[in-house]
Amino acid sequence: MATVKIWTDAEAEAHPRVKAVFDDIRATRKTDFVNNVWRALANQPAVLESTWAQVKAVMARESALDPLVKEMLYMAVSISNGCEYCVHSHTASARAKGMTDAQYEDLLAVVGLAATTNALVTALQVPVDPEFKV
Amino acid sequence: MATVKIWTDAEAEAHPRVKAVFDDIRATRKTDFVNNVWRALANQPAVLESTWAQVKAVMARESALDPLVKEMLYMAVSISNGCEYCVHSHTASARAKGMTDAQYEDLLAVVGLAATTNALVTALQVPVDPEFKV
Amino acid sequence: MATVKIWTDAEAEAHPRVKAVFDDIRATRKTDFVNNVWRALANQPAVLESTWAQVKAVMARESALDPLVKEMLYMAVSISNGCEYCVHSHTASARAKGMTDAQYEDLLAVVGLAATTNALVTALQVPVDPEFKV
Amino acid sequence: MATVKIWTDAEAEAHPRVKAVFDDIRATRKTDFVNNVWRALANQPAVLESTWAQVKAVMARESALDPLVKEMLYMAVSISNGCEYCVHSHTASARAKGMTDAQYEDLLAVVGLAATTNALVTALQVPVDPEFKV
Amino acid sequence: MATVKIWTDAEAEAHPRVKAVFDDIRATRKTDFVNNVWRALANQPAVLESTWAQVKAVMARESALDPLVKEMLYMAVSISNGCEYCVHSHTASARAKGMTDAQYEDLLAVVGLAATTNALVTALQVPVDPEFKV
Amino acid sequence: MATVKIWTDAEAEAHPRVKAVFDDIRATRKTDFVNNVWRALANQPAVLESTWAQVKAVMARESALDPLVKEMLYMAVSISNGCEYCVHSHTASARAKGMTDAQYEDLLAVVGLAATTNALVTALQVPVDPEFKV
Repeated sequence: MATVKIWTDAEAEAHPRVKAVFDDIRATRKTDFVNNVWRALANQPAVLESTWAQVKAVMARESALDPLVKEMLYMAVSISNGCEYCVHSHTASARAKGMTDAQYEDLLAVVGLAATTNALVTALQVPVDPEFKV
Repeated sequence: MATVKIWTDAEAEAHPRVKAVFDDIRATRKTDFVNNVWRALANQPAVLESTWAQVKAVMARESALDPLVKEMLYMAVSISNGCEYCVHSHTASARAKGMTDAQYEDLLAVVGLAATTNALVTALQVPVDPEFKV
Repeated sequence: MATVKIWTDAEAEAHPRVKAVFDDIRATRKTDFVNNVWRALANQPAVLESTWAQVKAVMARESALDPLVKEMLYMAVSISNGCEYCVHSHTASARAKGMTDAQYEDLLAVVGLAATTNALVTALQVPVDPEFKV
Repeated sequence: MATVKIWTDAEAEAHPRVKAVFDDIRATRKTDFVNNVWRALANQPAVLESTWAQVKAVMARESALDPLVKEMLYMAVSISNGCEYCVHSHTASARAKGMTDAQYEDLLAVVGLAATTNALVTALQVPVDPEFKV
Repeated sequence: MATVKIWTDAEAEAHPRVKAVFDDIRATRKTDFVNNVWRALANQPAVLESTWAQVKAVMARESALDPLVKEMLYMAVSISNGCEYCVHSHTASARAKGMTDAQYEDLLAVVGLAATTNALVTALQVPVDPEFKV
Repeated sequence: MATVKIWTDAEAEAHPRVKAVFDDIRATRKTDFVNNVWRALANQPAVLESTWAQVKAVMARESALDPLVKEMLYMAVSISNGCEYCVHSHTASARAKGMTDAQYEDLLAVVGLAATTNALVTALQVPVDPEFKV
């Protein structure tokens, strides 16, 4: 259950600022599907607008990284932060962008390994090597 | 400062299990440089051996993901976990594997964006869309 | 589902230490409603007593901060820690203490922004400015 | 030490996009002081611009929450995320905005309490009360 | 709901690598019960094999720590990381290994206390005492 | 560097509430050494008093868990939360209470393993087995 109302399409249609964002999500992503994070953020139009603007700027534009790589980075952060919804939505997006089973397995292996070595390094308070200095 | 002694090369040479791991790190990575995480783990030979075995298995083998992509995933997890040493070591490794300034900027943009949307989704407790079901 | 039994009122009535805490919660908060965290902690009477004593000391006394501000700080921590129950209970408490939609939107904006800048600062390992020294 | 160069004023002056952001930070905050997070982000002009735009939009505008309350929420998130630089910069900002010792003590008490109850709730996996439903 | 298929016994029987791990789990633990984490990992045989090898090496062998103490350490980490499934599985395992109600209460008290003092120390950025140096 | 002043013994002697806590720390622990967390908390006497009261209640009393086990649980939480000072102070305390190198190695192995499996379980969103229900 959410802490706020999840907006239906009818409710979004009746609210100009929300409708404008939903329309742009659909046009940008070329799909009629608007997932629940936007339907929850609709309760706070200013946060809805700025969040969508950031997502569009970061994920939908041309960039130095492949769209799938960006989605996998998003998955890695979401897993590390323990965000259930985010893990689901970005795993689904990565699959939609072509993530293979073998790539998913490698991502899991790296994320699992990083969690271990992060913990060991923190436990031992390893000093940064001078060689890593910029 | 570390919670344990950081082993010198001379100390590692005198301890067969540690020497064997250090030798393999050097041979695998084709460099004489052994960074501090291994010099700290040398105090616990069993953990040193199993950790190196995992790193070698995950990072050094052929895989479905590009070595640079794996290093960038490692960076994303290390940033999310707030591990200072790990951020330094994996940023340096990513650069050594060819990460460009433009790719670094994109990684930062994705990691920063994911942190925000993770927080908002958690704040609103957004329910998982049935469309994401496997 | 919980890892422990959620105590009913009848069970609490039959256990003097638990009953004493539940009675004090009701008297302090001027409501008959005892939420599930206390019904779960009832399995460990010493932890129940010390936790309620701390909550009462921190949240229910006169202080330099407005009760609503304290509740919003509680929300911010609970969101950052990813605690589902805590997000729900403290969002509900903040609303009961008068949090408006506009204040909620501002809290979300700050929490989301802080998550991003925290991540970027950690990624870049920004050194603390001498100007911030006490 | 940072993972990137910390830009001097002279370096910023020579780079139009960076100079524009630094000028706006100084004008908005009515101070010549530009703290290190911006000098680190200067290496990635697009992230510098979007981050400053967000900070300006969230922190510097009129809002439903007092500027000091927003700064204290920022502190609470930064503490929970374990971001050293952020704890320093936002504690300094809160003091500059008038945070008293008594308010600081109350903030610490709430943040410490929330950390405990978050942990206990997670340990016991307390189910959300139906009364909290929207 | 999971992001992957949860394998049934029949499906595991038909896949030699998965079957081998499931057989070893049953033989090592002397029970027919294979819990869901292994049924989820079955989708990635290499990660399944390496994860089980690590769990077996760390948890099932003779060691300097009592099996119950190791399980309680596992609980403490899982609680701190906010991993719902892990809290459930390791609390159940600790009980199966003899954790008493009094021990559980003490664990909760320590974990709750550590969460508070960790938060306060981070808030105040307490410098490490020279006496703690190795 | 800290966000607050680290109190000297002379300063503590001159402040009755702080002096009372410092005296009790010394008497309880049978040592003249008062570590920095208390010297930082001295700036907030109410938080100093309540924090010391909790530490004393949880760590110094008779309990169902061995003092060393409690210290190791404290280490596990501090590592998971990434608290540098706390890792140092509780590792030092565990050693002072007799933690052997072999026990330390086992703790590191468990904490590292738990970090990995926590991450994998979160990545896969493994559903809780009905067998774990209370």
